[in-house]
Amino acid sequence: MNVVVLSGGVGGARFVRGLVDAVDPSGVTVIGNVGDDLEVLGVYVSPDLDSILYALADLNDEERGWGRAGETWNALGAASELGGDAWFKLGDRDLGLHLLRTEALGRREPLSRITAGFAEALGIEARILPATDDRLRTWIQTEEGELTFQDWFVRRGHRDEVNGVRYEGAETARAAPGVLEALEDADLIVIAPSNPFVSIGPVLAVEEIRAAITDRRVPSVAVSPLIGGKAVKGPADRMLNRLAGGTGPGQVAKCYEGLIDALVYDEADGEVGLEVRPIMTKTLMSNAESRRKLAEATLSVAAVAR
Amino acid sequence: MNVVVLSGGVGGARFVRGLVDAVDPSGVTVIGNVGDDLEVLGVYVSPDLDSILYALADLNDEERGWGRAGETWNALGAASELGGDAWFKLGDRDLGLHLLRTEALGRREPLSRITAGFAEALGIEARILPATDDRLRTWIQTEEGELTFQDWFVRRGHRDEVNGVRYEGAETARAAPGVLEALEDADLIVIAPSNPFVSIGPVLAVEEIRAAITDRRVPSVAVSPLIGGKAVKGPADRMLNRLAGGTGPGQVAKCYEGLIDALVYDEADGEVGLEVRPIMTKTLMSNAESRRKLAEATLSVAAVAR
Repeated sequence: MNVVVLSGGVGGARFVRGLVDAVDPSGVTVIGNVGDDLEVLGVYVSPDLDSILYALADLNDEERGWGRAGETWNALGAASELGGDAWFKLGDRDLGLHLLRTEALGRREPLSRITAGFAEALGIEARILPATDDRLRTWIQTEEGELTFQDWFVRRGHRDEVNGVRYEGAETARAAPGVLEALEDADLIVIAPSNPFVSIGPVLAVEEIRAAITDRRVPSVAVSPLIGGKAVKGPADRMLNRLAGGTGPGQVAKCYEGLIDALVYDEADGEVGLEVRPIMTKTLMSNAESRRKLAEATLSVAAVAR
Repeated sequence: MNVVVLSGGVGGARFVRGLVDAVDPSGVTVIGNVGDDLEVLGVYVSPDLDSILYALADLNDEERGWGRAGETWNALGAASELGGDAWFKLGDRDLGLHLLRTEALGRREPLSRITAGFAEALGIEARILPATDDRLRTWIQTEEGELTFQDWFVRRGHRDEVNGVRYEGAETARAAPGVLEALEDADLIVIAPSNPFVSIGPVLAVEEIRAAITDRRVPSVAVSPLIGGKAVKGPADRMLNRLAGGTGPGQVAKCYEGLIDALVYDEADGEVGLEVRPIMTKTLMSNAESRRKLAEATLSVAAVAR
């Protein structure tokens, strides 16, 4: 079975990790968000792609929730002592990857090929693709002005309420090589439990991707990132409240209007009327088993024709 | 007293560390070799300047002899797992500095200003200047062809015999801002115990620097890097044998013909006839006291007029 998953941050990466335990990984293609990519200390960082890479290679730090297990922070510490920026937490092992990517981008290698090389080196069977090889950046509109995603999210700890989101470069961004082909060959399209505005939004802002999903001939399902109307982590609930008028499954489904046929959401949100097929289950991914079960509930959609 | 020291690798850095214990550091200007600078994993590394910075900030690893104390190697390890080059040993803490320098060079900041910023951040009182802000690279001529310095020295472990040395860019390189002024204001010029061909040679290859030392009005003294005709570490003895016809104090002095008035060399080399003033002492820098004593013996030259 060919499954295409749109994935953003850490929740998405966790979900994908469960997915490859529930289905043959060689049929899985992950389309990762690049809207929160940034350059810091001169290196190009692609946090969401890396979360996917680390999760699928079992290199991620389960406890901290992001970055690599067994990480050290000596490069950042030294840079900080010398007056460098230290607000964006770059671990030493993580940095090893960023150095190689930055070097390869400098040689004009596309991000998609670089990412495929890393996945191969790490023995990952699933395919990981950036939504686009073109520059696409998420900007957050707040009372403090328009902030880059990482400035808002990390430096300011997403404390500013969000009035709107803009995807710079989306108008001209092309889907990365392989993305449209994967959507074409998919038996099921899945939107991972990620923030609809800042994790999935930038992927769907690539017009070719949105059109391919809108015109799909196979089922598409989203997994809600909220449990009982609350985000497990991060600002998704506050953003949904403000930008979609609420934090129920209905509001999540509305973010993906025309793009999904079903929504997987948590039992804590109770029975609700939806314009798509509701799939109520436990969605908290606290361990390998709960991740796999959530993936299985999601995959059940594939059994039902559109 | 104003002292200008030409310094190359680890021996030079050790000597400079002793010098600032023997004389007011605020009068010391170190002119560092940049001929073995390189770009690796996309970062710009200036090993000799960094050895000086680390030694003067007491951050250097005394036991290993290069790099920083308490160093870790996780970034390089991760890069290597992903297929990156790992032949040049970049430590994590070291990397923090390289990242900042690479970023600053990308903003077109000159190396001299970047180095001064690091020295200030590390609380170093002595002044550290690169010989030049221009690109200058040491090439090593061997039976295997012409190799970059680090390819020959690190990757191939300086096993290839050296037929000659070439300083790429030396013809057009200008002395970095402050270098000629420091030489003009010096009470004493010192050539540290570094390899004459690959550590000091690239500094003297900058024509403005060579001319300023040739035309000096103050004493100039070199410290031999050899003890009993042997290098403490590295290929200096093999190179002197092959390129200068021997490993005695006379051959070392000949490398600096017209540029020095005295040579400090080790007792193990015995009494020899030299065309410059011989200063025989213990030159092995095994601890802070022996370093300081060597510096004091060297500084004694200043008491004697040219």
